[in-house]
Amino acid sequence: MNHTYVVIMAGGVGTRFWPFSRTSYPKQFHDVLGTGRTLLQQTADRFEGICPPEHIFIVTSWLYKDLCQEQLPQLSDDQVLCEPIARNTAPCIAYACYKIAQHDPEANIIVAPADHIILKEEEFQRTIKTALQATTGQDILVTLGIQPSRPDTGYGYIQYIPESGDAIKKVKTFTEKPHLELAQQFVASGEFVWNAGIFVWNVQAIIKAFEQYLPEVAEIFAEGADIYYTEGEKAFVDKAYSLTKSISIDNGVMEKAGNVHVVLSDFGWSDLGTWKSLYEVSDKNEDFNVIDGHIMLYDTKNCIIKTPKDRLVVVNGLDGYIVAEYDNVLMICRKEEEQKVKNFVADAKERGTEFV
Amino acid sequence: MNHTYVVIMAGGVGTRFWPFSRTSYPKQFHDVLGTGRTLLQQTADRFEGICPPEHIFIVTSWLYKDLCQEQLPQLSDDQVLCEPIARNTAPCIAYACYKIAQHDPEANIIVAPADHIILKEEEFQRTIKTALQATTGQDILVTLGIQPSRPDTGYGYIQYIPESGDAIKKVKTFTEKPHLELAQQFVASGEFVWNAGIFVWNVQAIIKAFEQYLPEVAEIFAEGADIYYTEGEKAFVDKAYSLTKSISIDNGVMEKAGNVHVVLSDFGWSDLGTWKSLYEVSDKNEDFNVIDGHIMLYDTKNCIIKTPKDRLVVVNGLDGYIVAEYDNVLMICRKEEEQKVKNFVADAKERGTEFV
Repeated sequence: MNHTYVVIMAGGVGTRFWPFSRTSYPKQFHDVLGTGRTLLQQTADRFEGICPPEHIFIVTSWLYKDLCQEQLPQLSDDQVLCEPIARNTAPCIAYACYKIAQHDPEANIIVAPADHIILKEEEFQRTIKTALQATTGQDILVTLGIQPSRPDTGYGYIQYIPESGDAIKKVKTFTEKPHLELAQQFVASGEFVWNAGIFVWNVQAIIKAFEQYLPEVAEIFAEGADIYYTEGEKAFVDKAYSLTKSISIDNGVMEKAGNVHVVLSDFGWSDLGTWKSLYEVSDKNEDFNVIDGHIMLYDTKNCIIKTPKDRLVVVNGLDGYIVAEYDNVLMICRKEEEQKVKNFVADAKERGTEFV
Repeated sequence: MNHTYVVIMAGGVGTRFWPFSRTSYPKQFHDVLGTGRTLLQQTADRFEGICPPEHIFIVTSWLYKDLCQEQLPQLSDDQVLCEPIARNTAPCIAYACYKIAQHDPEANIIVAPADHIILKEEEFQRTIKTALQATTGQDILVTLGIQPSRPDTGYGYIQYIPESGDAIKKVKTFTEKPHLELAQQFVASGEFVWNAGIFVWNVQAIIKAFEQYLPEVAEIFAEGADIYYTEGEKAFVDKAYSLTKSISIDNGVMEKAGNVHVVLSDFGWSDLGTWKSLYEVSDKNEDFNVIDGHIMLYDTKNCIIKTPKDRLVVVNGLDGYIVAEYDNVLMICRKEEEQKVKNFVADAKERGTEFV
């Protein structure tokens, strides 16, 4: 019997990727790379051969249940876990892991966000297999660490103990979004990797960690043991979410646990959190532009331009801008100021919920 | 009996105002200023009280006949003169003037383009009345000259003889689109005005001028004398246009005639030839932006942004750009490089005629 399970977290809205990522249609449901598969589909595809399709669970909002099942029609109702409200990653993971534990107490679980890009799938699968081997029957929590290519201040960093193992290293510290100087030191030291937010553990290890570091979350979701997979699940989960606090798995568990390990990896990863990160991973033309749409460029470089194909877009004289049009919103923004996007979204919301 | 007539030239495509001005919907049919009236309607409105509505004639292409009659429903079929092909302004004016002469040999005619902006309507009407007085029964050709506010290289300049009269001056020279240095000299001299392309003359004076300076054009349109206002007019005009050369009234008549006079005027005029000229005449916000649409600006100045109202547009970090979206085309262009717009149109045409 295959004891490998995948939990795909697909409940986020991805505000920084506005105007593509919208409340009614977040970025994981978009074909962001123009490959014909959405980010969610690509995430599920990535685990082919790792576990059987019926071992894939999606955690999402009720808002996106239909979208998930449209995009992944192989999923049964039991495989789409719907959250009544967003409570960050810890409750999301607790719900999925306690539910899986009920079905398979020997489950070995991969937890992955639905909206990341991974360019080297084979390398990714190799990394995942390494992690799965390490976690089978072992009381450790494994996270995937990405070799940093630049001092990105938008990522979390993991410091590992260099001499602590071969492919899998013991983790020393977690640091969320450091300032630039610190990020530069991290990269220079060679002892830090980016926190990809992709986790591997066996279900007993994560349950033990919840019990130890987030006991109130553990208690809430453990209570559902006999209710998961029954008609009462929805009512139980609605109640559970109303009781649980909002906290990330990093803050709640990973930063506190003493048994965290990292698999050093390099599989062309981006969290695709922002427009710049899409720019970084995309193919560029000779003027370093990333274009997706029906676009005519003149004297334009270092831009990312993504617009509907049925519209002709002419750009003259831009250097280093994001030009993004989706549905009823057009955004033009200096690439270096993309952190403002979340302000735009807040302001746009005041103009009408149809814009966010 | 009122012998005043107006000929509105409404056959142009206005390429430099792309993507608003389109082959199927040129700028004169747009409400460019957002006032609720299109440029064509504003042009017709401007002559209220100057002549009766049935004395207004529009010369346009067959393509735009319906648009003209939709926008000016008071016009009878006889008042919309349709050209089978564009042959510049001289044949257009000849057609209208010979047709009007047939109806009223004492006609005093104002010829005006449909796509200009005039902000001070009362001042305009005063100027027109001055010109009409001067041309009644007199063998002179009058053009309106605009006090230049800047050394614009996109306009034609008229040099007048300062001591030659009061409100109406004798013209010395015409100069089409001078280079910057020359334009600066023109403005500094105080003896030059912009050529507004708005003409006033009595019908006998213009016919005499055609006979003298463009005799082949005169001959072609004089032959229609008994055919205008009959069922044969269309066939006659189709033939006439196939025979006539393409030439402007400036090149063909005004620059050659010795009896040209100019009324010095200042009525907030713009030929609205380009985006920059719309920028110049429009109200600006505190950051010198001209905006028309549903627009949120951040750190943006000296821009003109005109986009559909149903679309939210967010602009961050632009200085001196045109952002124009209409129908299926979005254009972003440095304002100082707007002369490139005609290249964009040529290139866009290769992508599909639906874009031009």
